[in-house]
Amino acid sequence: MKIDIVTIFPDTIRTAVGYSILARAQAESIVTVSAVDLRDFTQDKRRTVDDAPYGGGAGMVLKPEPVFDAVESLMGEQGGARVLLMTPQGRPFTQDIARELSAEQHLVILCGHYEGFDERIREHLATDEISIGDFVLTGGELPALIIADAVTRLLPGAIGNEGSLGDETFEQDLLEYPQYTRPVTYRGWTVPDVLLSGHHGEIAKWRLERQKERTRARRPDLWARYAQREREAMELAAKERAAKRKRSVAKAGSTETTAHDQDNPAMPDRDALDMQRNDLTEEIG
Amino acid sequence: MKIDIVTIFPDTIRTAVGYSILARAQAESIVTVSAVDLRDFTQDKRRTVDDAPYGGGAGMVLKPEPVFDAVESLMGEQGGARVLLMTPQGRPFTQDIARELSAEQHLVILCGHYEGFDERIREHLATDEISIGDFVLTGGELPALIIADAVTRLLPGAIGNEGSLGDETFEQDLLEYPQYTRPVTYRGWTVPDVLLSGHHGEIAKWRLERQKERTRARRPDLWARYAQREREAMELAAKERAAKRKRSVAKAGSTETTAHDQDNPAMPDRDALDMQRNDLTEEIG
Repeated sequence: MKIDIVTIFPDTIRTAVGYSILARAQAESIVTVSAVDLRDFTQDKRRTVDDAPYGGGAGMVLKPEPVFDAVESLMGEQGGARVLLMTPQGRPFTQDIARELSAEQHLVILCGHYEGFDERIREHLATDEISIGDFVLTGGELPALIIADAVTRLLPGAIGNEGSLGDETFEQDLLEYPQYTRPVTYRGWTVPDVLLSGHHGEIAKWRLERQKERTRARRPDLWARYAQREREAMELAAKERAAKRKRSVAKAGSTETTAHDQDNPAMPDRDALDMQRNDLTEEIG
Repeated sequence: MKIDIVTIFPDTIRTAVGYSILARAQAESIVTVSAVDLRDFTQDKRRTVDDAPYGGGAGMVLKPEPVFDAVESLMGEQGGARVLLMTPQGRPFTQDIARELSAEQHLVILCGHYEGFDERIREHLATDEISIGDFVLTGGELPALIIADAVTRLLPGAIGNEGSLGDETFEQDLLEYPQYTRPVTYRGWTVPDVLLSGHHGEIAKWRLERQKERTRARRPDLWARYAQREREAMELAAKERAAKRKRSVAKAGSTETTAHDQDNPAMPDRDALDMQRNDLTEEIG
């Protein structure tokens, strides 16, 4: 993958890329991250990238010409790059977007500054507008690096033996369970007994309960999504069981039929489903 | 303000602090940002900061001892620092939290890595757990720098003449309006006439309409909050007008009273309020 970061502070990007996962992934040719100096695409002696806003107001606005020229020079003949504009007005960045972007060949990330970009850049050049969160920063460089980090670690081979990809927050809409390591007792605070028990089933159960508990308490938004997916999965499973039963009843019916089976072939499963549903509703409430 | 960032990659932090607003604010003694190497607080030869998780599972967990020791060495005699643990399990970072933190004297930011922190660090050392968003990163360094940037720019004197603080996204739950700068026509795309009109009232009205339109379309969550606040403000204003009228009616009543006034002193204002309410409901719908 190729990631080009267009910025008026290319040194910030270049230095950051020298560290952590971006450096390693680059060394292994998994990704190439380049800082592109927006001022290299200005036409005047003073290398002007911004100008006052039409209609008045504080601050400066990034001009269209250098941004269009920079991006078009990076696209080359083939085109087809995703052009991401970092802006608080964008779609909030999530793990789903990171996964989506990790399938691309070429990302161009535009870092905003001052009062932001001329609207024509948003309308006619950017393919995506992305926000890193509901807070105000001095520039788009840190958000661009965050996208580069989140996307790069999803590329095959980038993480190595350091950790697993699947077993993590946001892959399943639940927050992580509590983790403990040595010593068993630190300043009088001890590791929960179950984690020392060696009983894998009990440990898995305890961890899932803690995940649910924590997600429900801290992130009602994630919890609602998780509960919704669980409900859908249960309904689907119940439907499949009902359909299977119907088929086997129909098959049996070709030789022998009972009124009860035909009236309500899925009855036992529906009961089970309602019971599960009630459990989940109580948990949500 | 003093910001200490505790990390196993102090160079990443030190280099980033050499750039942008953090460098300028540091030069002007508005803030001091230090990178603190977690490994300086280990006791063994191999400077071990992590260990395997109790109960099994992939990855490593940051040990309690060096983290407690590092933070306690930074707190000094007076104590009272906010100790922020960067973790996807934390409270989502927002501009409100940035504003709250900008009133502190001392922030200690703990950068996570691998599978995260031993739970006893969360329970007995951190004062806040903060998440930068619903995505997975290789470490807490970029999130820590984002907090440092968002907080520092709110400190008096940090921004200078570059821009205004108040007139921005998330200060008012509305996304920014579109901005345009020269040229008036670029590749056939022109700046909206109203912005060239010089009519300040019309420009302000156009911008507010665009803000509402964009927020409603892109961020229903922010829009709901904005609409709620507008409704509350209108209700409060109507109540105040009603109370004022009641007082003036009571005053007039000491010399002369009409039945109509006493029955329903606030009637005209209630009508006006209902009309405004309907307008807002239509906009939300």
